[in-house]
Amino acid sequence: MESDWLDQSIVAKRGIGWSKKGRLHDLTEAMQGKYHNTIGPYSDPVLTVSLGDTIKVETHDAFEGAIRTEQDKPTPLTATLNEPLPELTRKIHVDEKHVRWSTRVTLPYNPHIGTLSTSPEIDSINSLTPDSHGGNMDLPDMGPGSITYLPVRTAGGRLFIGDAHACQGDGEVCGTAVEYPSTTIIRVDVIKGWTLEWPRLEREAFIMAIGSARPLEDATRIAYRELVMWLEAEYGFDRWDAYMMLSQCGRVRLGNFVDPKYTVGAGIAKSWLAP
Amino acid sequence: MESDWLDQSIVAKRGIGWSKKGRLHDLTEAMQGKYHNTIGPYSDPVLTVSLGDTIKVETHDAFEGAIRTEQDKPTPLTATLNEPLPELTRKIHVDEKHVRWSTRVTLPYNPHIGTLSTSPEIDSINSLTPDSHGGNMDLPDMGPGSITYLPVRTAGGRLFIGDAHACQGDGEVCGTAVEYPSTTIIRVDVIKGWTLEWPRLEREAFIMAIGSARPLEDATRIAYRELVMWLEAEYGFDRWDAYMMLSQCGRVRLGNFVDPKYTVGAGIAKSWLAP
Amino acid sequence: MESDWLDQSIVAKRGIGWSKKGRLHDLTEAMQGKYHNTIGPYSDPVLTVSLGDTIKVETHDAFEGAIRTEQDKPTPLTATLNEPLPELTRKIHVDEKHVRWSTRVTLPYNPHIGTLSTSPEIDSINSLTPDSHGGNMDLPDMGPGSITYLPVRTAGGRLFIGDAHACQGDGEVCGTAVEYPSTTIIRVDVIKGWTLEWPRLEREAFIMAIGSARPLEDATRIAYRELVMWLEAEYGFDRWDAYMMLSQCGRVRLGNFVDPKYTVGAGIAKSWLAP
Amino acid sequence: MESDWLDQSIVAKRGIGWSKKGRLHDLTEAMQGKYHNTIGPYSDPVLTVSLGDTIKVETHDAFEGAIRTEQDKPTPLTATLNEPLPELTRKIHVDEKHVRWSTRVTLPYNPHIGTLSTSPEIDSINSLTPDSHGGNMDLPDMGPGSITYLPVRTAGGRLFIGDAHACQGDGEVCGTAVEYPSTTIIRVDVIKGWTLEWPRLEREAFIMAIGSARPLEDATRIAYRELVMWLEAEYGFDRWDAYMMLSQCGRVRLGNFVDPKYTVGAGIAKSWLAP
Repeated sequence: MESDWLDQSIVAKRGIGWSKKGRLHDLTEAMQGKYHNTIGPYSDPVLTVSLGDTIKVETHDAFEGAIRTEQDKPTPLTATLNEPLPELTRKIHVDEKHVRWSTRVTLPYNPHIGTLSTSPEIDSINSLTPDSHGGNMDLPDMGPGSITYLPVRTAGGRLFIGDAHACQGDGEVCGTAVEYPSTTIIRVDVIKGWTLEWPRLEREAFIMAIGSARPLEDATRIAYRELVMWLEAEYGFDRWDAYMMLSQCGRVRLGNFVDPKYTVGAGIAKSWLAP
Repeated sequence: MESDWLDQSIVAKRGIGWSKKGRLHDLTEAMQGKYHNTIGPYSDPVLTVSLGDTIKVETHDAFEGAIRTEQDKPTPLTATLNEPLPELTRKIHVDEKHVRWSTRVTLPYNPHIGTLSTSPEIDSINSLTPDSHGGNMDLPDMGPGSITYLPVRTAGGRLFIGDAHACQGDGEVCGTAVEYPSTTIIRVDVIKGWTLEWPRLEREAFIMAIGSARPLEDATRIAYRELVMWLEAEYGFDRWDAYMMLSQCGRVRLGNFVDPKYTVGAGIAKSWLAP
Repeated sequence: MESDWLDQSIVAKRGIGWSKKGRLHDLTEAMQGKYHNTIGPYSDPVLTVSLGDTIKVETHDAFEGAIRTEQDKPTPLTATLNEPLPELTRKIHVDEKHVRWSTRVTLPYNPHIGTLSTSPEIDSINSLTPDSHGGNMDLPDMGPGSITYLPVRTAGGRLFIGDAHACQGDGEVCGTAVEYPSTTIIRVDVIKGWTLEWPRLEREAFIMAIGSARPLEDATRIAYRELVMWLEAEYGFDRWDAYMMLSQCGRVRLGNFVDPKYTVGAGIAKSWLAP
Repeated sequence: MESDWLDQSIVAKRGIGWSKKGRLHDLTEAMQGKYHNTIGPYSDPVLTVSLGDTIKVETHDAFEGAIRTEQDKPTPLTATLNEPLPELTRKIHVDEKHVRWSTRVTLPYNPHIGTLSTSPEIDSINSLTPDSHGGNMDLPDMGPGSITYLPVRTAGGRLFIGDAHACQGDGEVCGTAVEYPSTTIIRVDVIKGWTLEWPRLEREAFIMAIGSARPLEDATRIAYRELVMWLEAEYGFDRWDAYMMLSQCGRVRLGNFVDPKYTVGAGIAKSWLAP
């Protein structure tokens, strides 16, 4: 994640701790405790970090290692009157370059984390549910070279991470990505005086506002509304000019539309943001 | 549209008329008649073409030239109890390279047609409504270098075209793109024996199935379902393998989510389709 | 329909033709013509009536008599990846008191018309699609003793009627009601100077505003918004008082949620409307 | 709640503790503790009851007494680009017969509880969110003379109650009902060996299955699906016969469509359930 552009990133411009490098922490699976599949303020933290620290997190796959053979099945979905689709499990080879989907198809390795969040103010919820605190957003953009900005709603700025994917399509349509146990290294900083209502993401080429809701229209409206307000508040655009301009150059990424809430990112290329 | 890849396109492989080049027709505004803003089987065609013919269509802007100054306003949306947003009109400079959005922002010229359709079987509807026959899909991918495949539902294979955009963001969030009068040249062919339920699109790098419905989830489900069935029927994939694979490499394009029905394209890179 | 309350109805108070009784017209199936399953302004009327006239309409069942045995199947729905539900047809006995659903269950005869509409301004659409002009709303309240108010969008005030039901549950959940051929008698009047955006319904005990849209939230929002505006415009309520009051005493009827657009009625008891 | 029909109720037929009357417990506000606005398994119970016990619960109003004058405002909704509606507060007189809405309108007193739930298995969530464990369903049917059946997901069968309403319209359209502090008396029993996926409700005249989801269609589908399965499992109906029959006689109640999830009840008159 040591690309050059990070010195020009929002966190570099606004952050107070970015310049100093902190400790490296190891967060092993053994440390992660009983309620690691919930996101909330009630349980005790498993690790305490300081500004600028880097954390090396061991993450389970999404099924917590419970799916070991192609005969093991994930949890069923909301029942309908229709027969459910067949539940299939496939184990595939993943390495640092390739996802060998089948003898016919090899997909590129595009690692990212599905779940990243701070803690909601009073809820302690299944990490599968994304919302304004982050959560299981399943955005393929949230991989190496990206910075995610999350609101802080509880004392201590609790942080949750998990659900690494070796690659994922838009919408994660069958309900799972290429889930795998991984070791993820993140660096953590706090930007004081910057209040976010919803998560945001930055990469070298674009910025993105993220909304999670149902129906999918509501997620898209939240994401675009946040992006409009962001352009107004920090990039000097008139609100209605930003709104009309995004109708010409906004880009939408569908995270997943299989979770309890669906996630949409609305982004704009940084090249249109120059003063 | 004379790129080399067209010889390797689906229409080239399946089409019967593509090889022979037909006449060039001029379809002027004056010829387009009274009900040109409806799509249906009842009115008489304004032009009759043969397989392989090319048509040069003059299209109005989306407001049929009625918006001439920045004081003219488009039609209001479905009323809510909230005050509506301010209705603003902006006239901007467009040329073959640039869309000069403002003194600060110049966007790239990315021309495409918002509306392309055959005729529904019995309806004669406002061209603003997309459905399984096509219609106002507002997909920025539907520009030069693309091939759109539409189902034929009425004798004569009626075709409708309009709503050219100089550029458009995903979702067309404020309700309009950069609308302009244009002259569009399309070549028309018929593929016999290929029955489509929903529109499809092909570009050099990918194929895409297109769904239009509300809520937005339904449009996305239709698009992905069509793509799964397409991979099964014509590319030799097992249905459930295709479904799971798209969960890893499918790409979603949001057309618009401001129309009477919303449009979503679900695509896959051709590179994963090699036998 | 000659209940006493009709003299106190909205149409009696506002209508100009209600007091005089006009001719009785017979509209047989034979007269109904080629495009009787579309609603629109293009085809010629099959009957011309004057204010205050009464019309006796023969209606087909919803399948136009095509389903004659329990082996005949209705049209399939939008395909999904799931296996569709089994398509079953049941012929049952209906008389003027009972719907004999099975040897075990006899339901009450509650006749109403599923489809009632004027013509949209420019569309000529499948009568299955409800919208602001009316259409296939499938509201069980639209039976004997009710008055439906529809907007006039085309010269001549074209009127369409069909899809009689012997009874129907809220939502028409399996896609059909107890469909039967019937003879429906309606009386028609015009209220000049009353502009409606969406259909409205009146019965002795309540008034109802009707919205049709997808998703179902949008239909509900439209219906409640219309009812708020109605209470403000004609019953002397402050807009926000009406809005808050409906949150305490509004009643919702789900018409169908199986059509291309879903229909919701939002009503209020007349007893709360006294000055 | 001592109506005669309770002896014929589902709980009487299936329950094991109903016949014996237990203790009466007082649950005062002072006992209710820190996280009383969350529903979940982590905090310690504030009262432990035995089968057949009766509990007298003091409930706050929905705003926990924080709204004391008409100048106090409730929390704002999800932001949109539109100006929000004006936030108005009205204090009104409620007694055991009437809700005096205004000098013009007096509504009937129809008390019910908005929130009733057991605990989700692993979440500890804002009580405003209804789901398969119950929660803030806002169904006006959930008042005196009703029995609510809830699934037990955690050891001890934790129970949460709150949000009493003096009356409420379908959909609770402005976001609040007539909220008031009240004392609610409920009797609690456990039915062993009866596994529910979603809440159910029984009154003298009907049974109802309850679904909570977004979009509103999903809530309606869940409720009807549960009712179909209930008729199959316990009333001897064939699944598809039940499904088709509900299309003729099912009744829908919209709880609220302003919560994080919307609630719909699908019911059937007991008169159609006789063997």
